[in-house]
This record gives sequence, C-alpha cells and structure tokens, in this order.
Amino acid sequence: MRRWRRFPWEFAPVSELAREPRPPYVAVIGDGEPRGPDAHRLLEWAEEIGHALARAGATVVTGGLGGVMRSASRGARGAGGMTIGFLPGADVSEANEFVSIPIATGLGVVRNLVVVTSSDVVVAVGGGYGTLSEIGLALRMGRHVVALSSWRVESDHRIGGPYIHRARDPREAVALALRLAGRLPLTT
Amino acid sequence: MRRWRRFPWEFAPVSELAREPRPPYVAVIGDGEPRGPDAHRLLEWAEEIGHALARAGATVVTGGLGGVMRSASRGARGAGGMTIGFLPGADVSEANEFVSIPIATGLGVVRNLVVVTSSDVVVAVGGGYGTLSEIGLALRMGRHVVALSSWRVESDHRIGGPYIHRARDPREAVALALRLAGRLPLTT
Amino acid sequence: MRRWRRFPWEFAPVSELAREPRPPYVAVIGDGEPRGPDAHRLLEWAEEIGHALARAGATVVTGGLGGVMRSASRGARGAGGMTIGFLPGADVSEANEFVSIPIATGLGVVRNLVVVTSSDVVVAVGGGYGTLSEIGLALRMGRHVVALSSWRVESDHRIGGPYIHRARDPREAVALALRLAGRLPLTT
Amino acid sequence: MRRWRRFPWEFAPVSELAREPRPPYVAVIGDGEPRGPDAHRLLEWAEEIGHALARAGATVVTGGLGGVMRSASRGARGAGGMTIGFLPGADVSEANEFVSIPIATGLGVVRNLVVVTSSDVVVAVGGGYGTLSEIGLALRMGRHVVALSSWRVESDHRIGGPYIHRARDPREAVALALRLAGRLPLTT
Repeated sequence: MRRWRRFPWEFAPVSELAREPRPPYVAVIGDGEPRGPDAHRLLEWAEEIGHALARAGATVVTGGLGGVMRSASRGARGAGGMTIGFLPGADVSEANEFVSIPIATGLGVVRNLVVVTSSDVVVAVGGGYGTLSEIGLALRMGRHVVALSSWRVESDHRIGGPYIHRARDPREAVALALRLAGRLPLTT
Repeated sequence: MRRWRRFPWEFAPVSELAREPRPPYVAVIGDGEPRGPDAHRLLEWAEEIGHALARAGATVVTGGLGGVMRSASRGARGAGGMTIGFLPGADVSEANEFVSIPIATGLGVVRNLVVVTSSDVVVAVGGGYGTLSEIGLALRMGRHVVALSSWRVESDHRIGGPYIHRARDPREAVALALRLAGRLPLTT
Repeated sequence: MRRWRRFPWEFAPVSELAREPRPPYVAVIGDGEPRGPDAHRLLEWAEEIGHALARAGATVVTGGLGGVMRSASRGARGAGGMTIGFLPGADVSEANEFVSIPIATGLGVVRNLVVVTSSDVVVAVGGGYGTLSEIGLALRMGRHVVALSSWRVESDHRIGGPYIHRARDPREAVALALRLAGRLPLTT
Repeated sequence: MRRWRRFPWEFAPVSELAREPRPPYVAVIGDGEPRGPDAHRLLEWAEEIGHALARAGATVVTGGLGGVMRSASRGARGAGGMTIGFLPGADVSEANEFVSIPIATGLGVVRNLVVVTSSDVVVAVGGGYGTLSEIGLALRMGRHVVALSSWRVESDHRIGGPYIHRARDPREAVALALRLAGRLPLTT
C-alpha cells in the first residue's frame, strides 16, 4: 500500500498542488462515554485503530469529544498523524487534546452528518444510538462502514450501494478501512 | 382511546388555547420509490396505516415526496386527517398532492432529522438506507420506532431509552404507534 | 384580495385535493426577548401583524418561542388563524401557547433556515443578530423580506433577486407581505 | 505579532500536545462567481488577504469553491499556509485545487454556518446574499466580521456582542482580523 506524503504543500510549488491527492480520511465513530464490561476494551481498540490508520498515512476524523473519539485521536497523534474533530458546539475548547484540526460546527446533532460525509470510509467501534444514526447516514451518503463489535443491521429488502463490513479485531478493521478508502477491489 | 378534536382553536377563545393538547404526530417513513416484488404491498400498507392513524385523530408526518410518503398521506387525507410533509428542497410544489401542510425546509438530507424529531413516534414501512438513518436518528432523539417489514437492528451492547418495536401487519403497527404516542404502558 | 378557505380538505373529496392551493405562509421574525424603550411597541406591532395576516387567510410561521414570535402567534390565533412554530429543540412543550402546529426540529440554530424557507415571504419586526441572519438566509433562499423598524442592509454591488422592503407601520407591512406572497406586481 | 508554529505535533511528544494552541482560523467569505466591474479587484484582494493571513500563521477557512473562496485559498497556499474548505456537497472533488483540507459536508446551504462558526473571525470581501447570510450567522454565533467592500448593516436597536468592522484595503482587513482573532484589544 502506498503511503501519502503528509503535507505535500510544504514542498511543492503552487502550480503542482492540484495534482496531489489528499490522504484518505477515515472516520472512527463510537460512544463518547462507553460503559459496561466492554468499555475498556472498546477504548483500547479505538486507540489501536487510530494508531494504525495514522501509520498508514490516513487522517483520522471523529466527533472531537471523549470516549472512542478521544482514544482514536490519541492513537493517531501518537503515530504522528493528523486528526480532525467535528464538534457539536461553537466552542473549540470542547475538543479533546488529541484533535489537531478542531472544527466547531455549531450544528448540534447534525454534526454527525459531517463526520461521516467528510470521510472516505467509516469505522464503528461499539456504540449506541448516536453511532447507529451515523452508520445509517454514512450508508445513505454512499460511504462503506466497517463495524467492530458494533451494530448488526439487516433488511428484508435488497439494498444496493455501500455495505457494513464486519471486522473481528482492530487489525482487520484497519485493513478493511484502508482497502475501502482506496476503492480497491475487496479481494484479499 | 380518546379522540382529539381536530382544530380546537376554531371553537375556543384564545384564553383557553393553552390547555388544549395538540393531537399526536406520527411519522410514517419509507422508500420514496420502492422497487422489487414487495413494492406494491408496502405502498398498500402505508396507505392503510395513514388511514387508520388519521381516523384515530393523529396527524401523519412524512418527508412529503413519493412512494411510502405519498401513500401514507393519501390514506390519512382519505380519512379527513391532517398531513405534514417536510420537503428537502426550497420549492413547496415538490410536495405530493396529499400533503396538507407542506414545509419546504431547504435542508437537503438534514430534513430527515426534522421528520422524526417533530413526531411523537415513528412508523417505518420497508425502506432503504435513508430509512435506516431516520430510524437511527429517531432513537437518538428519544423517539420509539415501530417497524413493519423494515430494518432489524441489533447491538452487542445494552442500550437504554426507546426501542424498535416489530409489527406483523399494519393494524398492529397502528395500535403500537398510538399506544407509544400516548405514552401509555406497553401492556396488552 | 381573495380569501383562502382555511381547511379545504374537510369538505373536498380526495380526488380534488390536488387542485386546492395551500394558503400563503408568512414568517414573522424578531427578538425572542426584546429589551429597551422600543420593546413594548415591537410586541404590539407583531401582534397586530399576526392578526391582520390571519384575517386575510394567511398562515403565520414563527420560531415558536417568546417575544415577537409569541405576539405574532397570539395575534393570529385571536383572528382564528393557523400558526406554525419551528422550535430549535426536541421538546414540543417549549412552544408558546399560541402555536397551533408546533414542530420540534432538533436543529438548534439551523431551525432559522426552515422558518424562512418554508414561508412565501418574511416580515422582520425589530430584531438582533438572529433576525439579521434570518434576513440574509431568506434573501439567499429567494424570499422577499418586509422590514419594520428592523435591519437596514446595503451593498456596494448590484444584487438581483428578492429585496428588503421597508414598511412604515404594521398595516403597510401586512399589505406588502400579502402582495409579495401572492407574487402580485408591486404597484399601487 | 507572534507567529504560530504551523504543525506543532510534528515535533512535540503526545503528552505536550494539549498545551499547544491551534493557530487562528480566519474565514474569508465572498462571491463564488463575482461579476461586474469590481470582480477582478475583489479576487485580487481575496488572494492578497489569503497570502497575508497565511504569512502570519493563520489557517484560511473558506467554502471551498470558486471565486473569492478560490482566490483566498490560492493566496494562502502560495505562502505555504494551510487552507480548509467546507463544501456543500458530498463529493470532495468539488474543492478548488488550493484547499489543503477539503471537507465534504453534505449540508447544502447549511454549510455556511460551519464556515463561520469554525473560525475565530470572518473577513467578507464583496459578496451577495449568501455572504450577507454568513455575516448574520457569524455575528449570531459570536464572531467578529471584517468587511471589505462588502455589506453595510445597521439596526434601529442597540445590539451587544461582536461587530462588523469596516476595512479600507486588504492590508487593514488582515490587521483587523488578526487582532480580533487574537482577542487583543482593538486599539491601534
């Protein structure tokens, strides 16, 4: 898998900027305050996923707050990566300390749409109803979803377009996400 | 079940208006262009549901366009009911002819949030990814969902709050919806 | 000026519903908590405008809360009219008691876009920055604005499309609004 | 004026990231397709403003499309700066070639709220009704606005909070914006 140079504009003349693709954006979504016996494991998984995505050159996109959002951002920053956090409110100081590009949207619950639409692919780690709505919005906007210990969703009707791909562990989740972000065929 | 007087303000002095509750608002969501072998049946069900809701005094809320939205509105209007349609665009003429209160939101895909949040309970009839996102948003906003031949949704984690209630036929869907809208206990 | 029958669907068979136009929707916008020496006068004007709009058969649209929104709704209901209130939150009980169709949007500040886009014309009575943003959004969405003791807005550049029309009193504001809602020529 | 290090996370251990402030975000708003005799001048001004903001270490935020948005981004990138572009649609390829962080919001016209809310201060260069609505939203969300050959806006009522600051040329616009972004007192 090729690596993206992280900040190409530092080295390229303006005339060449247009030809540089941006790195893949991968959203990591999940509970802002996970509870129950699985909570600790979900946070560890989110951090591992963020770290591996950043190492592969991807930008990690989250909702910018706590829990899974913070762990994924922490993992990515630990690997030198860039993290974007779309906050619901108007105050940028709500962002967790591992968000490098904090975006105060002022959108409230509508900010969830931006998290998934701005990304090439979405990884869901656990999660409650907020995560379910983001999964639905992601599919609605044409983005594939990788689910790790997250929602199972089935319909009586045939649905075309993107899918939910179930991963067994963080490693598989990252491999799937990078493949889907690159729009490579889903074989091997 | 008690019936709501439909337009109480016609008969009541302004000083008494505050005490009249509004009728229950029930959203009916589903595909704007259902296809496949089930399409005809889904549209019939939506019309039957709209009709029964209106007969019980409920206001039927939809996304205002075709398919399930139009059939539910048609059923409600046939029973003398009121129908609200939240359109994605800025042009009110996009509404189907059975919407009595057409609302041009200008919100695009964000209008789905308004459809479910403005309602006391949501009935999903079949549906694709748009419907899945509305189900997720409804639960996220604290609204119960009644599903008829629609999405099955499961999580590995315990989730509190509202639920998806599966109905076997339109009759049961309406009974469940009216009970949930009235916040009556879910027994019997 | 012709009067619209208020609830045509009560009397018409379903097959004829499509041909009935909906009544004009007129938004009345302004401060939710007006202060200063003008506050009382602005509220009186809003009530007078709501009353006159409803008498002419128009539906009054507001943001559903207090101040100018409440006064305009109160005026309209006093004349037997229908009032729609788009609330920012998810709780319908936030609506003032003179809203007949309360819509809990869940949109936060974005609900302002729905107030103006859903209406045929917008009347601004006084108002602060929220009102200024609604005036801008109304013009952006192609709606004319009638301003009574409200914002004066000028550009160095030529702008096509709708305009801000300044009214000297509530009577003139209503006459202008009804003419603009009916898309009649602005003569006389 | 102090300069911000552009990408502090490249050099700092994760434990210190929390203490680094992000650079100031300055939105540059204006017409996506300026016409008339001033068009060329407005585009030159936008480019000059973008360039000077980036030289001072600010991140330039725009709506990501053409006209003033493209010129401001081009100026900023020419100075080695970072540019964020919030697109209305779901397709990142709509961004102009000078956007380094393109965000496909899927929000349609609602994306304007994100442009101004995410920024510390807003610079308006010319502009039509879209720009007027962004100015209103910026003030509504508590952001100061610097106007260069843009809208003049006046109210009959006293309004507290942020203001529109009129600049005579791009140089003054940039100086004002940087001062307001830093929340320094507005003296000289």
